[in-house]
Amino acid sequence: MRTAIYPGSFDPFTNGHLDVVQRAARLFDRVIVAVARSEGKHPLFTLEERKALIEKSIAGMPNVEADSFDSLLVDYVQKCSAQAVLRGLRAVSDFEFEFQMALMNRKLNDSFETIFMMPKDTYTFLSSRIVKEIARLGGDVSTFVPPHVQIALKAKLPVHKP
Amino acid sequence: MRTAIYPGSFDPFTNGHLDVVQRAARLFDRVIVAVARSEGKHPLFTLEERKALIEKSIAGMPNVEADSFDSLLVDYVQKCSAQAVLRGLRAVSDFEFEFQMALMNRKLNDSFETIFMMPKDTYTFLSSRIVKEIARLGGDVSTFVPPHVQIALKAKLPVHKP
Amino acid sequence: MRTAIYPGSFDPFTNGHLDVVQRAARLFDRVIVAVARSEGKHPLFTLEERKALIEKSIAGMPNVEADSFDSLLVDYVQKCSAQAVLRGLRAVSDFEFEFQMALMNRKLNDSFETIFMMPKDTYTFLSSRIVKEIARLGGDVSTFVPPHVQIALKAKLPVHKP
Amino acid sequence: MRTAIYPGSFDPFTNGHLDVVQRAARLFDRVIVAVARSEGKHPLFTLEERKALIEKSIAGMPNVEADSFDSLLVDYVQKCSAQAVLRGLRAVSDFEFEFQMALMNRKLNDSFETIFMMPKDTYTFLSSRIVKEIARLGGDVSTFVPPHVQIALKAKLPVHKP
Amino acid sequence: MRTAIYPGSFDPFTNGHLDVVQRAARLFDRVIVAVARSEGKHPLFTLEERKALIEKSIAGMPNVEADSFDSLLVDYVQKCSAQAVLRGLRAVSDFEFEFQMALMNRKLNDSFETIFMMPKDTYTFLSSRIVKEIARLGGDVSTFVPPHVQIALKAKLPVHKP
Amino acid sequence: MRTAIYPGSFDPFTNGHLDVVQRAARLFDRVIVAVARSEGKHPLFTLEERKALIEKSIAGMPNVEADSFDSLLVDYVQKCSAQAVLRGLRAVSDFEFEFQMALMNRKLNDSFETIFMMPKDTYTFLSSRIVKEIARLGGDVSTFVPPHVQIALKAKLPVHKP
Repeated sequence: MRTAIYPGSFDPFTNGHLDVVQRAARLFDRVIVAVARSEGKHPLFTLEERKALIEKSIAGMPNVEADSFDSLLVDYVQKCSAQAVLRGLRAVSDFEFEFQMALMNRKLNDSFETIFMMPKDTYTFLSSRIVKEIARLGGDVSTFVPPHVQIALKAKLPVHKP
Repeated sequence: MRTAIYPGSFDPFTNGHLDVVQRAARLFDRVIVAVARSEGKHPLFTLEERKALIEKSIAGMPNVEADSFDSLLVDYVQKCSAQAVLRGLRAVSDFEFEFQMALMNRKLNDSFETIFMMPKDTYTFLSSRIVKEIARLGGDVSTFVPPHVQIALKAKLPVHKP
Repeated sequence: MRTAIYPGSFDPFTNGHLDVVQRAARLFDRVIVAVARSEGKHPLFTLEERKALIEKSIAGMPNVEADSFDSLLVDYVQKCSAQAVLRGLRAVSDFEFEFQMALMNRKLNDSFETIFMMPKDTYTFLSSRIVKEIARLGGDVSTFVPPHVQIALKAKLPVHKP
Repeated sequence: MRTAIYPGSFDPFTNGHLDVVQRAARLFDRVIVAVARSEGKHPLFTLEERKALIEKSIAGMPNVEADSFDSLLVDYVQKCSAQAVLRGLRAVSDFEFEFQMALMNRKLNDSFETIFMMPKDTYTFLSSRIVKEIARLGGDVSTFVPPHVQIALKAKLPVHKP
Repeated sequence: MRTAIYPGSFDPFTNGHLDVVQRAARLFDRVIVAVARSEGKHPLFTLEERKALIEKSIAGMPNVEADSFDSLLVDYVQKCSAQAVLRGLRAVSDFEFEFQMALMNRKLNDSFETIFMMPKDTYTFLSSRIVKEIARLGGDVSTFVPPHVQIALKAKLPVHKP
Repeated sequence: MRTAIYPGSFDPFTNGHLDVVQRAARLFDRVIVAVARSEGKHPLFTLEERKALIEKSIAGMPNVEADSFDSLLVDYVQKCSAQAVLRGLRAVSDFEFEFQMALMNRKLNDSFETIFMMPKDTYTFLSSRIVKEIARLGGDVSTFVPPHVQIALKAKLPVHKP
């Protein structure tokens, strides 16, 4: 059985993330969407909220599950006996940062591979950061996130009236 | 009549920004330099100060005006009945971020275009952030910003004595 | 009246090019799609064929016309009394090459501006070169080029049977 | 059973390619190294030679095989009932070209995924083109290619005496 | 006598930095590793600690010394009568930022050159930021920093227990 | 005595190359501008012509000389007992290719360093290829190359009359 870890902050989970998960679920026996605590980034949603939003998004995908971790990624991957870490790539700047992280992780542990996948082209512009910025200014994010994430954003971000 | 919006934080307005405005003023009937509130970036100058520095810089350019906005860019563009949003491009990293924003804006509203222009080559290194850093350390910024911006920087940033 | 030149090899004209032209036609009074001879690139279609394929593609767009040129771009732009040169940007590699050309052209003549526009996101992967490669191998290019360009490609490139 | 296709010109197969194959063989049930004819690139080795050099390199890897194809990649992938296409990424320029090809292939057929892997960091500089250039000038390529490829290069490229 | 300044935050000094210093020491008569105060970055180590960690790392290198500065880099370079400023380049994002800084510095003072060097390929992924992140999560950084820096990191960052 | 090799095709030598040489001459005791044969690139000028154009350009610079080589760069550098290879960097695409070459050369011989320098910002767009293209179309290249190179270009490239 081959397991892939899809780590991230997922603050919050977007349709771009969902697209990567759906594609990965066809290639691996088991896909774990693993929320990193990322406290240093001052996330909008708590770790538990972020995990719950993912769980609702992947309901009905039998070989996908949500989890969280608070250690080095390489230790978490080993604990899960996973063969691969999965990352979505959208742009050159993604690419460089991801490459540095993947090379560093390989130095720390060469028993798994980092593989990169492309989200659907209409999601190349999409990031959790931009979604939050639009929601904060009262923009419509219904085509960028699942419906329950949209509701959660509205609850967290009372629209700012200019 | 064709109107272009040139949005930004302009904290503060530099000679690179001025160069883009002058070039745009030849292509459009009306150019609006629109200061975004950008509170999240903790700007050095207030919204009003930034707008005032721009107004002084564009005095004498009949088809250019300064304004500010505190909403989604796409909503502001529509309110102005503008046909284009203008962005200066200096480097690959600019390019990627600007592309993501422009694609996102197009998703939100496809009734206007984002167009990119190059500042004069001697300004490709110039950014408001670098100008502030030099001013903070007592460096001479007279070739990077208009004279009244230089004076405003001096007033805001008492030179740090090492 | 403001005129923009959209220069290129257009070997052949694709839906990505068409998308840029349609967007530009909303911003300028007159748009000239200008085919460069580009003999050094050994084009598949002759200059006349390329121009004819464009003319058929822009039929019905009153402020767009097709032309060809065989001189320095800066001289051609001046001959047309144009205010802008238009270029589509898809990727970082485009960006760098286009920037070098635009800076060089500005050195040669600073009386016009090069402005960059983004094609529709579903066309970011599209290039004349890739279209020809797919057509050569018998692939379906109907979603990448106008119908009459597809017919012209079939006539030029008898499908190779592996 | 999950099958991945690793397509390329492999003119010739290098230790960087071999490294990617070894990593992929841990993630997929079956890996097919598929040599593209690439006649337009005027390869140094014939299709048959390139395939033979790969076969010798992968001897002893039970779930890896070599093949060649002369059609659209998407058609070949479908013929093999593969779920994934595999590409090595070394640099930003790789990334952009590979992304364009992957997006184009997805337009032509969305039933498989392109996934990207990193070769070992000491191979990030390695390309078939550079290996040939060094061999042509009499340099030592023994750390860059398998021994039998080195012999084949020597036979093809009589060292040029300055 | 030719002097090169190697400026940075060095928070903390890594094996990648050390590699650059060793290479530079072969090209210049005197190399000064100059720690910038960088208070805005909220460094983990104080200026004095960072300088002390460097001093221990370069012990035994006769033409290398450590220093610190709290002014504009261009003023510091002039004060040292240095002919060159040295920067390590790892990735495209480095490259762009470094280029902007170097061009800006050249505007401020054209009497010295910024030169760029590559660290050893196995260090291309290495940054002080990533080292701190790994140390914070209890990972082993012994191959990334000199032994005394590893000890200093352990003292500063009590390992977080998940 | 420290020697730096500045290798290239120099087809032909431009003001951008000259600028790099002038800057390097301040940092090294001896700078050798070394013309690579580059027959595969079908140069416009012969090896001898290219070397002669350089010699005329560097007349009056006592510690700079011109040479040519037809071997691996690493072998040539060793033959000259040089400590450094010098390369100009203008853009991201330069950067990536140059990095690959420098890493490869370091694998072949780790006894010298490749160092990168920036030409003057007004030359960032400049390349021998673009200069030839402009000269071929009758454009004025007087600000891009030394006067005697301009004369040589005119003799080689009878202006094409559209």
